Amino acid sequence: MKPAGPIPPMFADQRGMLTIAGRGADAWAQQTPVFVYDPAIVTGQVTRFRAALPGIDLHYAIKANPHAGLLAAIAPMLDGLDVASGGELAKALAVKPAAAISFAGPGKRDEELAAAIMAGATINVESEGEGARALALADRLGRRPRLAVRVNPDVELKGSGMKMGGRPSPFGVDAVRVPALVRQLIGGGADWRGFHIYAGSQALDAGAIADTQAATVALAARLAEEVGQAPPLVNLGGGFGVPYFSGDAPVDVTAVGARLAATLAERPMILADSRFAIELGRWLVAEAGVYLARIVDRKESGGETFLILDGGLNHQLAASGNFGTVVRRNYPIAIAHRMSGPVEETVSVVGPLCTPLDRLGDRVALPRAEVGDLIAIFLAGAYGASASPAAFLGHPPAAELVA
Amino acid sequence: MKPAGPIPPMFADQRGMLTIAGRGADAWAQQTPVFVYDPAIVTGQVTRFRAALPGIDLHYAIKANPHAGLLAAIAPMLDGLDVASGGELAKALAVKPAAAISFAGPGKRDEELAAAIMAGATINVESEGEGARALALADRLGRRPRLAVRVNPDVELKGSGMKMGGRPSPFGVDAVRVPALVRQLIGGGADWRGFHIYAGSQALDAGAIADTQAATVALAARLAEEVGQAPPLVNLGGGFGVPYFSGDAPVDVTAVGARLAATLAERPMILADSRFAIELGRWLVAEAGVYLARIVDRKESGGETFLILDGGLNHQLAASGNFGTVVRRNYPIAIAHRMSGPVEETVSVVGPLCTPLDRLGDRVALPRAEVGDLIAIFLAGAYGASASPAAFLGHPPAAELVA
Repeated sequence: MKPAGPIPPMFADQRGMLTIAGRGADAWAQQTPVFVYDPAIVTGQVTRFRAALPGIDLHYAIKANPHAGLLAAIAPMLDGLDVASGGELAKALAVKPAAAISFAGPGKRDEELAAAIMAGATINVESEGEGARALALADRLGRRPRLAVRVNPDVELKGSGMKMGGRPSPFGVDAVRVPALVRQLIGGGADWRGFHIYAGSQALDAGAIADTQAATVALAARLAEEVGQAPPLVNLGGGFGVPYFSGDAPVDVTAVGARLAATLAERPMILADSRFAIELGRWLVAEAGVYLARIVDRKESGGETFLILDGGLNHQLAASGNFGTVVRRNYPIAIAHRMSGPVEETVSVVGPLCTPLDRLGDRVALPRAEVGDLIAIFLAGAYGASASPAAFLGHPPAAELVA
Repeated sequence: MKPAGPIPPMFADQRGMLTIAGRGADAWAQQTPVFVYDPAIVTGQVTRFRAALPGIDLHYAIKANPHAGLLAAIAPMLDGLDVASGGELAKALAVKPAAAISFAGPGKRDEELAAAIMAGATINVESEGEGARALALADRLGRRPRLAVRVNPDVELKGSGMKMGGRPSPFGVDAVRVPALVRQLIGGGADWRGFHIYAGSQALDAGAIADTQAATVALAARLAEEVGQAPPLVNLGGGFGVPYFSGDAPVDVTAVGARLAATLAERPMILADSRFAIELGRWLVAEAGVYLARIVDRKESGGETFLILDGGLNHQLAASGNFGTVVRRNYPIAIAHRMSGPVEETVSVVGPLCTPLDRLGDRVALPRAEVGDLIAIFLAGAYGASASPAAFLGHPPAAELVA
C-alpha cells in the first residue's frame, strides 16, 4: 500500500456522496471525465491571502488554469493577471484591463510583443535582445511600451519543487546586468514598470518563502539604487505550494504575511512608494478543481486489483507523476459516493491509455468500488486539463464545468 | 557538455542546409514550429522489416503517430493497424479495411466496443469483464464479434524502456486465466481471432527481443493447447526501439528475423497454420519525423548560453525528458543550415514555456546559431505532436506536414 495525498479540507470531512459547490458529484458527472471548478474555493484562498498579506497586490498566473469560465469568475477578485503567451494575453484581455496584465516568458515572438504593446499590457523583458526588439516594435507602432525587467535572481527559493533562481537560466536577466538594461529601456522611451523576480514554485515552507521574499526585496532595492529610479511595482514572484502528497502541509500564509510585513516595514527608502505583488497560480486554483472519472473496468492481475477509468494522463498528466516529478507519488483520491467510507481494499487506479505510464493511483487504500462508480482526484484545478496531452491515443477531451 | 543522441543515418551525413525529402528545411519551415514527416523513410523501414522477417505480418500501432496524412501514405504498405481508442479506430477505418484493424487498450467504453463490433474490427479483449460486455453488445447489435484475447504474459522484454509483461498489469488477462476466457468467448459465439501478447517497448537488443519472441511463441502454443483450438493470428507484440541517445545503436532486425524464423520453424503443431504479426509504432515512424523550430532569442546567463525556440515541450514533451524517463538525456539535434558544421559552442536549447522543464537540448555542442535560425530535433516522428500538452501556456500548435 502506498499513501495518497491529503484530501483538501473543504472535501475531507464529507460523508457519502462527494459534494462540490452544493451539488453531488453524480450530478456534475453527467458526462465523464469532467473537471469541476468551484470559484468559491478560489474566493476562500483570496480571502486568506488578503487577511495575511494586506496591501500586497495579488496576481494570478493564468498558466495554472486558463479556463475562460473560471477566469471570468475570479478575475474581479484579483489585482493583476500574469500571462505567458499571446494566447494567454488574449484570454486575460477578455476579463481584465491591460494595465493589470503583465506578460512574462522567454522566447516572446514579435507578434506577441506587438500585441502586448498595442493593448498596453506590461511586458516583463527577459533579455537584452528582447528589450531591443520591444523598443523597436513600439517605435514602429507609435506606442510607448510598458516594460518591466524580469530578473534572474541570485537567490533561490529553498525547498521549492521547481527552482528558478540562483543559477544560469533562460528566465530573466542576470541581476548584475539589470541596471544597465533598465537604463537602456528608459532611455529608449519605455514606461518602466519595475521588476519581476521569480525564484521558484511549489514551496510549502513559510520560512523559506519569507527568506526568499526578504532577499528579493533587498535585491530589488539594490537594483533600483543602481538604476537611480524607484520601480513602480516589484513582483516578488509566487511559489506558494499546495499539499499534493502524504505528509505535505499547507503553507502558513499568516507567517509569510507577518514576515513580509516586517521586511517591508524596514525596506530601503528607494522602495518607499513601490507597490509589491505576489503572483500565484497553483495556490489559488488547485484545490478548487476536482477531476471525476468513471470506472470502466475492474480487474485482477497477479494478485493486484486495477480500477480502469475513462480518463487518465491524457487529462491529468501531473497526477500520473510524469510531469516534472522524479518520484511518482499519489495525489489525493476518493471513491466519489463513499467519502469517508471504510478502507476495504488496496487498488491501483489507472487510465484507459495503452501505456504503463497511465496510473493515477498506485496501490491506494480505498473503499470498494465497482464498474460505473465515480473516482475523484483532488487538486485538479491547476496544471490539469491544459497541461496534459489531450490528443494522446485519441480519447475525447475532458469536459470542464464551472460551479 | 552533455552528448546528444545520434542523428539518424539518412540525415547524419548531410552538409549545409538539412534536406528532408529533397527539400531544404528552410522551405519546409515557412511556418514554425513544424513537424515534417517523410513517408519514404517509413518505406525504408518497411523494406528492412520485409527483408528480415519474411512471412511475418507487419502491423502499425497508430498511437505512435496518428497524423491522417502520414497514415494514408503508409497504410498501403502495412498488413494491419492497431488502435487504442474509438478515435484511433475511426482514423484507421478511413485508410484500411476493418478486417486488418485490431483494437487494444484497457478501459474500452461500451460505445467504443460497439463501434468496433459494427465495423468488424478485431477487439483485443483485456479482461473477463470486457469480454462479457463485448459479447452482450454484439448480441444486442446482432453481429458476430471478432475477438482476440490480450495476454498479460509471464515473461518480460529484458532491456526494454517500458516493461509491460511479467507483473501485475492493467493490460491483458493473466496467462493462467486465458484459456478459460477464450473458451467462454467461443462459447458465446465470437469469431475468435487469436492472441495479442505485448511484453514491452523501446528495446534495442536483438537478443532480448528474440528471447521474448521465442517465449511468446511458446506461451501462445501452450495457451492454444489448453484452449484446444489453433489461433488464427498471434500478435507477438513489438518493442523494437530507436536510438534516441548517445551510445544507442539500432536494433539488428536481421538477427531478430533469423532467430524468429528458427523459433517458428520448430513451433508446436498447434500453431502450424497460425499467422504471426509484429506490431510496431516508434520503429516505423520515429526517424521519419523532424521537428523544426526557430530561434527567437539567444541569451547568456551565469556563463551559459541559451537558444530559445518558438516551440518546446508543448510539442515535444518526450524530447524534454518529461514523459516516462527517469534521467533526462538529449535527443539528436542540429542547427538546420549547418549540418556537419564545426562545433563552436555549448548551448542549452529551450522552448518558450515559462517552466524550467521546457528544455530540448541540455548543454549540447553545436555550431554557432543566431536568432532566426532553425533548430532541428530528430526522431520526432513518434510520440511527438499527439503526445504533448499542446494547449499548455497557450502557444499555437505545431504545423504538421507530410512530404
